[in-house]
Amino acid sequence: MSKTIYPIIIWLMVAMLISACSQDCQDQDHQGRQAGDPLPSWNDGAARLSIVEFVQAVTDETGPDFVPAPERIAVFDNDGTLWSEKPVYFQLYFAMDRVKELAADHPEWKTTQPFQAVLENDMEALAASGERGILELVMATHAGGTTEEFTTVVSDWIDNARHPRFDRLYRELVFQPMLELLDYLRANGFKTFIVSGGGIDFMRPWVEEVYGIPPEQTIGSRIKTVFEMRESGPVLVRLAELDFIDDKGTKPVGIHNMIGRRPIAAFGNSDGDLQMLQWTAAGLGLRLMALVHHTDAEREWAYDRDSHVGRLDQALTEAEKNGWTVVDMKNDWDVIYPHETNR
Amino acid sequence: MSKTIYPIIIWLMVAMLISACSQDCQDQDHQGRQAGDPLPSWNDGAARLSIVEFVQAVTDETGPDFVPAPERIAVFDNDGTLWSEKPVYFQLYFAMDRVKELAADHPEWKTTQPFQAVLENDMEALAASGERGILELVMATHAGGTTEEFTTVVSDWIDNARHPRFDRLYRELVFQPMLELLDYLRANGFKTFIVSGGGIDFMRPWVEEVYGIPPEQTIGSRIKTVFEMRESGPVLVRLAELDFIDDKGTKPVGIHNMIGRRPIAAFGNSDGDLQMLQWTAAGLGLRLMALVHHTDAEREWAYDRDSHVGRLDQALTEAEKNGWTVVDMKNDWDVIYPHETNR
Repeated sequence: MSKTIYPIIIWLMVAMLISACSQDCQDQDHQGRQAGDPLPSWNDGAARLSIVEFVQAVTDETGPDFVPAPERIAVFDNDGTLWSEKPVYFQLYFAMDRVKELAADHPEWKTTQPFQAVLENDMEALAASGERGILELVMATHAGGTTEEFTTVVSDWIDNARHPRFDRLYRELVFQPMLELLDYLRANGFKTFIVSGGGIDFMRPWVEEVYGIPPEQTIGSRIKTVFEMRESGPVLVRLAELDFIDDKGTKPVGIHNMIGRRPIAAFGNSDGDLQMLQWTAAGLGLRLMALVHHTDAEREWAYDRDSHVGRLDQALTEAEKNGWTVVDMKNDWDVIYPHETNR
Repeated sequence: MSKTIYPIIIWLMVAMLISACSQDCQDQDHQGRQAGDPLPSWNDGAARLSIVEFVQAVTDETGPDFVPAPERIAVFDNDGTLWSEKPVYFQLYFAMDRVKELAADHPEWKTTQPFQAVLENDMEALAASGERGILELVMATHAGGTTEEFTTVVSDWIDNARHPRFDRLYRELVFQPMLELLDYLRANGFKTFIVSGGGIDFMRPWVEEVYGIPPEQTIGSRIKTVFEMRESGPVLVRLAELDFIDDKGTKPVGIHNMIGRRPIAAFGNSDGDLQMLQWTAAGLGLRLMALVHHTDAEREWAYDRDSHVGRLDQALTEAEKNGWTVVDMKNDWDVIYPHETNR
């Protein structure tokens, strides 16, 4: 090795040390907590405290609230709880993008609602098509092919489509504090599940990479599929027929059917999550019920009782009445999205 | 401590040593294999070899067939694959026992089929009531209460009811070689699932203790449940309406809905498992498809192509054609039930 290289190597090593130190110092300084804090994006406050105290209590083998690891089931709504949901559910953007992709094969869509509204970017006309319109949109864009074909379509979209307000991939608009919370719970022996009104086959292609939640721990709404033996081999074909809607009172049903145990912790953000929280709360022993309250119009959105998407009204009243944890996004979260931090 | 106790203690210690040694020697001598063999109840042969070679191949990080742990999904049918299913599915015994328990509240059952047949132990009349009769029986005995009430009923039954031929608890009539196989797969990073035509809520109360398979990895047939808020709190009520039958072509559907990944190993024993094995086989990479062939009339039962319960006809033909593993119970299994061994 030439001697002239030594200074460079030494300089590099010093630079690495400085960098490591500054990283370390940053960790130590952030929120005035020690390095290794599992929830660095959570500001000190009642929400953070209720989570940490709950986890400590149910994992303390000598304490009265200890819960064996296999029963440490935590459920999370997705839209508005793990990622944003404004101005409309991201899955609706997927459906709209898909309509535009498929439009060449469907000339009739130019003059048929709700497709015409999508092709003309007329959100008002789309809203006017109501639930029936949305359902038609979902069936036209989510059904028809095989399960494997749909997975490919979703994977392509999630890796490329961008949110109109932030010009970022939708998958980047997940909540950094919730990612930390998921990791923190798993590090404490919890099994984390998604229980979402969103489509199960819309979530599964990417939630493992983004949230660390495997497909078999993802529950959602779904359309019917049927087994078909083709010459090329067996396939599952997606029918234009609803099989299960995972919302409100059917969230506990989905939990019962798919998990078969009552969760000890549940996180939601809207009235669609109320029954899931009630079902969780009604079990024996210590429980944690929490709502993400969207209070930050600047960094994300602010909405609750009057919102069409993600309305939080009755569940907020119940939370206040029952002493459930309410996460005030603006005050409780130091950062919202992962791209705001280098962590 | 009185000196007279010492000889007793020494005798006890010697006895324990002898016992430990004989256990050890038995392990070493058994099948001529070393202690620590994960499949001691499996005789040497093609079936055992195909399992061991498959597991070694998919867990060898340097080999061409390596599969990352999260994708090591193994699915098992229950009736006839993990426990016996003769002379009729054990769940039918549960339903019949339940009819007798509930009969006092249903005087009309004395003269109404299929209930009369059950109350009179008239298996011929019960068989004559056909599928509709069995369905009526299931609805009358499985629906009506809450999910928690049903769990209690099943737990009581599985801890007390005895099989007519063996006079043993049904839960004792599980296959020792399959228990070893489940442990062996899990020790190698597999996630083991049940995919059964049997009732999901009939299995979940006991499969974790008996098979080490948690409720959230148990898939089966189910009736509808609805969420109801009562004064005492929220409940899930079991309706007399089928929600999902997990058999034949719907086994891959159940796997898709509940797991969301294609298994790399599948174990069944009847034509009801054929599509599950085909679906497993059609994935990319190394796969293991296996059928338990009931060939031991003396220790268990012998049946295949002509059996009403657990018919194995088309799947056996497919297994031979495709080179799937066929476990010959009589020759491949050194013991059938756990009570035959002290292991």
